[in-house]
Amino acid sequence: MKILVTGFDPFGGEEVNPAYEAVQLLPDKISSSDIIKIEIPTVFSKSALVVEEAIKKYNPDVVLNIGQAGGRSSITVEKVAINFVEARIPDNEGEQPIDEKLQQDGETAYFATIPVKSMVKNIRDHGIPANISYTAGTYVCNSIMYNVLYMIHKRYTNIRAGFIHVPFSTKQVVDKPEGTASMSVETIVKALEYAIEVIVENKETMDTTM
Amino acid sequence: MKILVTGFDPFGGEEVNPAYEAVQLLPDKISSSDIIKIEIPTVFSKSALVVEEAIKKYNPDVVLNIGQAGGRSSITVEKVAINFVEARIPDNEGEQPIDEKLQQDGETAYFATIPVKSMVKNIRDHGIPANISYTAGTYVCNSIMYNVLYMIHKRYTNIRAGFIHVPFSTKQVVDKPEGTASMSVETIVKALEYAIEVIVENKETMDTTM
Amino acid sequence: MKILVTGFDPFGGEEVNPAYEAVQLLPDKISSSDIIKIEIPTVFSKSALVVEEAIKKYNPDVVLNIGQAGGRSSITVEKVAINFVEARIPDNEGEQPIDEKLQQDGETAYFATIPVKSMVKNIRDHGIPANISYTAGTYVCNSIMYNVLYMIHKRYTNIRAGFIHVPFSTKQVVDKPEGTASMSVETIVKALEYAIEVIVENKETMDTTM
Amino acid sequence: MKILVTGFDPFGGEEVNPAYEAVQLLPDKISSSDIIKIEIPTVFSKSALVVEEAIKKYNPDVVLNIGQAGGRSSITVEKVAINFVEARIPDNEGEQPIDEKLQQDGETAYFATIPVKSMVKNIRDHGIPANISYTAGTYVCNSIMYNVLYMIHKRYTNIRAGFIHVPFSTKQVVDKPEGTASMSVETIVKALEYAIEVIVENKETMDTTM
Repeated sequence: MKILVTGFDPFGGEEVNPAYEAVQLLPDKISSSDIIKIEIPTVFSKSALVVEEAIKKYNPDVVLNIGQAGGRSSITVEKVAINFVEARIPDNEGEQPIDEKLQQDGETAYFATIPVKSMVKNIRDHGIPANISYTAGTYVCNSIMYNVLYMIHKRYTNIRAGFIHVPFSTKQVVDKPEGTASMSVETIVKALEYAIEVIVENKETMDTTM
Repeated sequence: MKILVTGFDPFGGEEVNPAYEAVQLLPDKISSSDIIKIEIPTVFSKSALVVEEAIKKYNPDVVLNIGQAGGRSSITVEKVAINFVEARIPDNEGEQPIDEKLQQDGETAYFATIPVKSMVKNIRDHGIPANISYTAGTYVCNSIMYNVLYMIHKRYTNIRAGFIHVPFSTKQVVDKPEGTASMSVETIVKALEYAIEVIVENKETMDTTM
Repeated sequence: MKILVTGFDPFGGEEVNPAYEAVQLLPDKISSSDIIKIEIPTVFSKSALVVEEAIKKYNPDVVLNIGQAGGRSSITVEKVAINFVEARIPDNEGEQPIDEKLQQDGETAYFATIPVKSMVKNIRDHGIPANISYTAGTYVCNSIMYNVLYMIHKRYTNIRAGFIHVPFSTKQVVDKPEGTASMSVETIVKALEYAIEVIVENKETMDTTM
Repeated sequence: MKILVTGFDPFGGEEVNPAYEAVQLLPDKISSSDIIKIEIPTVFSKSALVVEEAIKKYNPDVVLNIGQAGGRSSITVEKVAINFVEARIPDNEGEQPIDEKLQQDGETAYFATIPVKSMVKNIRDHGIPANISYTAGTYVCNSIMYNVLYMIHKRYTNIRAGFIHVPFSTKQVVDKPEGTASMSVETIVKALEYAIEVIVENKETMDTTM
């Protein structure tokens, strides 16, 4: 099994992006599956192209995009991506789409096709806070999640895909106001491993205890 | 130099107290000073007695009490303790003093006599969020900080003292609502080391950049 | 023009629901349109039935459902409803659907068909905090928004519909922890009026300054 | 009985200060006591002088200072003021004292001499969220509270004094991030009236149910 894991480069004035920082630190194998790690640009028009190139090159079974949700206190596995973009700030190449559809012929939304609930449960079972999220926002994170699910529905129907948001890293919040939650990069890496373990084992459970 | 570092035992329904968890993991020497670590009870009437016994036994140069401030997102070094107690919940032996003075002949408040500002700066300089706090609350944390400063002003005038609040540990917030900040125990231990380094070097600076 | 405005009855241990409290206090006419106000049960299986009955009875041009989002600090106009239900607590008749679709033949999601962005802008222009929200949750609020948009797409294609979440009312948070945001019922009523004004005038603007 | 109530003028880039906005709207009599309302400058060196002039002119029985604590969600009656100033931003005349005592011969702290707990209880009994606060910060609010209590202890021993912090007003948070708590000016005015009622009746109760 091959899992393509992507992380965005830094944006919004931050010097690092804990998403790719953590992705880089993942082991090359998790539960005997190959982990392919790539950095993708925080640019609306390019990020999906870079992912599609990697899909063609590596032919993965699963695409897992990782992004930062500054302010959230837990690892959040996204349930749904919507056909909508509204950029509060320009992306890293100055694009700022407002109130637009991402794909003219796309569905209003796609659900993640990875076992969201079991992933969250496994992260929590290992002592790391995690939750399901029902909004990936309207910026590049929702955009890449939507566009990957769109291309999978259209062209790569054997691939499964989904998105995980990670908090600010500890270092990032030093100069932010008291009350701004963070998580150490070491903990984020562990959480991603526990999430990927579940994808590999595909253990979509009926467990409802979270 | 000898530094007595205390941590409370668990309270309020929590199974662990990251304060003592972290204290336990401190090295036995920091910058060539001896670190003496003790657990103290989350009990109003006993905690100060246990600290005073340890003062008599170890004759430390500094007393540093560590406690948990669930909900805070950063390490907070307390500036001031007040002569007041108001317990929202009973302590571990069922005591719940309400609207009382801690010491009839004590001052309204005492400032910490450790270099609060430089400690915060050194923690932040190492990439861990930290802030000065101007309230240690009205529970056992303020109580032990006040009582230690009181006994020092009355009986141990060569000793310096202060208090550090630490966030919930990562594990503690797994079942708490999204938005509840936490910090890994490893990061908390590192932060305490950086704080103690400054106490040892006594580098009270005029730096105002925090 | 006729606008059907609904509010849920109290749930989750709260004695009041500011949603219906506010709906009740709306004037009977806004910008010369008739405002029809009904209370609907916080029950998954019944709430949509009650709305459909009211649609048949009153033949409205617009259906606007109002619900409470305890913890939010501003009026939030919902952009999207998803075909998913996951009840954290039972509804008022003990139903607690977990990890289910709302409609087997429904789309993954529907966007609101009211002018979300202009509604938010008009509320803000009158000095009341408001934001677009991209998740109505997975409880009865998302459920009624989804089910109404579903029936409109299937059976009442001339009707427009959408959902507004309102904060806790001031009174509701008296015994909640400091930090729990609220809004006075008077302010909520005003905000709903400003929102409805825009629906009546249908002024979908290109304004992007929010 | 005469009560001098002060509110700061706007600062920190805000166009209004809900403190004085609300003070202005107080009735001239509460429970048959005269309410004297003055605006004071957000300037460290001047604010206490303006209050002392008003004390000499009006000879009040109580001095109640009102200030804004942006971000708090409830009315907070302050318990204690500390002999310390640390200005994060310059005041309205550019003064920015750092790490200084307010009064060389003042106590480390003074407790408010108004019935803090009963005031909070009466505000809550009327359905408005209120809490005791144990820190008035280190800016002009703590400064005026401390300086007034200092002058009262030194020179006006018959006068009682204290401080109330009020949240951002609803209008102020329109352009602030979702999650920023606020309170309508109407509600703030009501809360101040309920607080002053208790000062007039001086009903310091033993009630501990808050």
